[in-house]
Amino acid sequence: MGSRGSGWVTPENVGLLVDLYELTMADSYLRHGLNQQATFDLFVRELPPNRNFLVCAGLEPVLDYLEGLRFSPETLGYLESLKLFSREFLDYLEKFRFTGDVWAVPEGEVVLPPEPLLELRAPRVEAQIVETFLLNQMNFQTMIASKAARVVLAARGRAVVDFSPRRDHGADAALKAARSSYLAGCVGTSNVLAGQLYGIPVYGTMAHSYVMSFDDELSAFRAFAQDFPQNVVLLIDTYDPIQGAKNAVKVAKELAERGLKVKGVRIDSGDLATLSREVRRILDEAGLHDVKILLSGDLNEHKIEKLLQEGAAVDAFGVGTEMGTSYDAPALGGVYKLVEDERGYRVKLSAGKATLPGRKQIWRLYDDEGTMVRDVLALADEPSPEPEARPLLKPVMRGGERLSPPEPLPRIRERCLRNLERLPEPLKRLERPRDFEYPVRLSPKLEALKARMHRELVRAPAPDPD
Amino acid sequence: MGSRGSGWVTPENVGLLVDLYELTMADSYLRHGLNQQATFDLFVRELPPNRNFLVCAGLEPVLDYLEGLRFSPETLGYLESLKLFSREFLDYLEKFRFTGDVWAVPEGEVVLPPEPLLELRAPRVEAQIVETFLLNQMNFQTMIASKAARVVLAARGRAVVDFSPRRDHGADAALKAARSSYLAGCVGTSNVLAGQLYGIPVYGTMAHSYVMSFDDELSAFRAFAQDFPQNVVLLIDTYDPIQGAKNAVKVAKELAERGLKVKGVRIDSGDLATLSREVRRILDEAGLHDVKILLSGDLNEHKIEKLLQEGAAVDAFGVGTEMGTSYDAPALGGVYKLVEDERGYRVKLSAGKATLPGRKQIWRLYDDEGTMVRDVLALADEPSPEPEARPLLKPVMRGGERLSPPEPLPRIRERCLRNLERLPEPLKRLERPRDFEYPVRLSPKLEALKARMHRELVRAPAPDPD
Repeated sequence: MGSRGSGWVTPENVGLLVDLYELTMADSYLRHGLNQQATFDLFVRELPPNRNFLVCAGLEPVLDYLEGLRFSPETLGYLESLKLFSREFLDYLEKFRFTGDVWAVPEGEVVLPPEPLLELRAPRVEAQIVETFLLNQMNFQTMIASKAARVVLAARGRAVVDFSPRRDHGADAALKAARSSYLAGCVGTSNVLAGQLYGIPVYGTMAHSYVMSFDDELSAFRAFAQDFPQNVVLLIDTYDPIQGAKNAVKVAKELAERGLKVKGVRIDSGDLATLSREVRRILDEAGLHDVKILLSGDLNEHKIEKLLQEGAAVDAFGVGTEMGTSYDAPALGGVYKLVEDERGYRVKLSAGKATLPGRKQIWRLYDDEGTMVRDVLALADEPSPEPEARPLLKPVMRGGERLSPPEPLPRIRERCLRNLERLPEPLKRLERPRDFEYPVRLSPKLEALKARMHRELVRAPAPDPD
Repeated sequence: MGSRGSGWVTPENVGLLVDLYELTMADSYLRHGLNQQATFDLFVRELPPNRNFLVCAGLEPVLDYLEGLRFSPETLGYLESLKLFSREFLDYLEKFRFTGDVWAVPEGEVVLPPEPLLELRAPRVEAQIVETFLLNQMNFQTMIASKAARVVLAARGRAVVDFSPRRDHGADAALKAARSSYLAGCVGTSNVLAGQLYGIPVYGTMAHSYVMSFDDELSAFRAFAQDFPQNVVLLIDTYDPIQGAKNAVKVAKELAERGLKVKGVRIDSGDLATLSREVRRILDEAGLHDVKILLSGDLNEHKIEKLLQEGAAVDAFGVGTEMGTSYDAPALGGVYKLVEDERGYRVKLSAGKATLPGRKQIWRLYDDEGTMVRDVLALADEPSPEPEARPLLKPVMRGGERLSPPEPLPRIRERCLRNLERLPEPLKRLERPRDFEYPVRLSPKLEALKARMHRELVRAPAPDPD
């Protein structure tokens, strides 16, 4: 317990990152021969507060997990020590390989509830064992990408950098927040590990404490410029941002003599709109038109929108806590529900918890300008509802093997930015649109199937257990 | 990028889980000979919304990190590829060992802002490099422990189980949410990996989908009881909780013939207060007084308080999303600030961002009943303000080595429960007390030092950079 190095999730122990009931259910299914193919949909029932759409993220970590999932002797030893599981089940886990098929909406694509982000077909025991991890990863990463997309939209083409690691919920969150916000259109992150593992550009130069560690601000700026001549972004508000801007000009002139440049200045406090304009004027008067201004300090999409409305002179935003925790909606309620098994289509009826039967396809239709106009949710084996409709769910894994190598993150990011451009105007705004609902229609066949199944279930609702 | 297994934080790469500016600053400090001993306080400036106190958590993972922190050839190769850092700094990192001292409030102890949760003294470069990770871990885990303590208080002695993995922010969050909520008084978690790594009791039996996988509810209950005779907790609300309770009675009678018992039933939807009373009556009428009732379904401390006020018949609560994400206050704003260096005491003045100088001690005073009555924040070298005062900050690491082995988690949990008992009544309530503020006073010496330093800084505020 709590011994050195024991507190990490690793590829070797991640099989145990599972709710206990998944394993008890799986053991029981195995013993009772309930291990036929079953299909599960991972979807979100309704939009979280303050969100107009979702941006899919988390698929790559999920495929990585499914491909690599094994139960090591240590994990099996622990399970055995619980004195809960059958020998048969432990032997099954020892030889475990995920053998199922997965269809998914590519990362960076926009979806609307109740469209499935992912569908998985596998022997029921396998499908059950992977539920917790799939939800843990897809819920969090889709939540962050969806939040980051709002920040990116609010920034109207200006760069956004993830500054969230110190407030993210632990180590994996810091890593995946960097990845999810980058794929949603941010330009990079302060998180060096995300830089190494995902190739995301990393940003950062100095904190106020650095400036305070020197006798005065100008000495600090000079020291930094000397040490990192290619990466001179100066934090100018430790004492007084106007004087800081003048010091930055001084350093820029000194660097210019050596053929080097100040890349930018950062302002982290105060009235950012006013200060940024004054700082811009000081820089411009010194001919430093290409020195960028980066703003930070408890920013979110609303503050960014307001700053731009107030005419802030800004090239980039550093956004931390609010983006990395999805502060105003810090949980996404994605669920994972059985939609088909050896008995045929399956649905749940309960109010607010209803599901749609069967494997599906999401068809998206655009107008002549390329703007999304409506989605049709259909059964997977239906033909395209219109020749131009674009199918969103793609096969990504068959028999436990990926159908293609991991997508490069910049390509996912391009997809997301293209998706954000193609959003209907009301969904691009930060507020919930009042008189607009993006249409997600069921195909006539899915609608009819749903109605028929609901009628049948209502006729024979709960099996009488007596 | 995104290749198999690359998306994990491991003991080998965690050194890079750092904001880039920590490394650029560290490199610059090293080059400019600014590597003397410096002391940093990790503290929270003010209570988050809806919180009356904080419960310390995250120390053990932090000490584990500090002891094990190394920079592997792979991580150094990546840093070199950024073409930012000096050879001197990369060589320094190659030989990196944390050599500093740490004082900390033990996990499970209650603290009030602005009391430091942790103080670290180390060469400035080391202290800088570890900042991001320390904040990432302490902020998150203290936030969860503080939220979980509210849930535990609301449950008034009834058991609380962490059900949060599917909504936690990634893998590390799921693990640490289980640990932090357990140490704050929960009885266990659904998270099997937290069971293995931390020895936390694990809970869970079945989901609605399990019940639906059998022809009828009674068959599902019988199958489960047959497979897990020692762990029969039956989910009774898949169809109708009253009928479910009757089926549970039936299974209990069948088990009784074999000398076995139903341990409990779970209700996950509907009017939990009314249903639980009806279910209790059904169980009691069948003589099943020791079958426990577990309630779950989007619970939080307010709903639990209301359920108990309404007279719910309940032995345990399963709490997920709201506890595991600290939904109503999903970020803790802990900061890490220089309080002393080779030049002496250090403070920051800025409005709302002021710091207190010097290494400190927190002294806590209790009344005759053992209830907390006030804290005194003093300089570390001051004597106890009163003979009975209890010091909260303890030395935990010297020269980079732990001073004692990891504390057993049950002992931390006991400490937390004792702390919760000893809270003043107004802080135990879920609302912010209106006419009560728990006194956190500065010692006369710290008060005088602060006043003197502020006077001096105001007299010579910003060093004139010209």
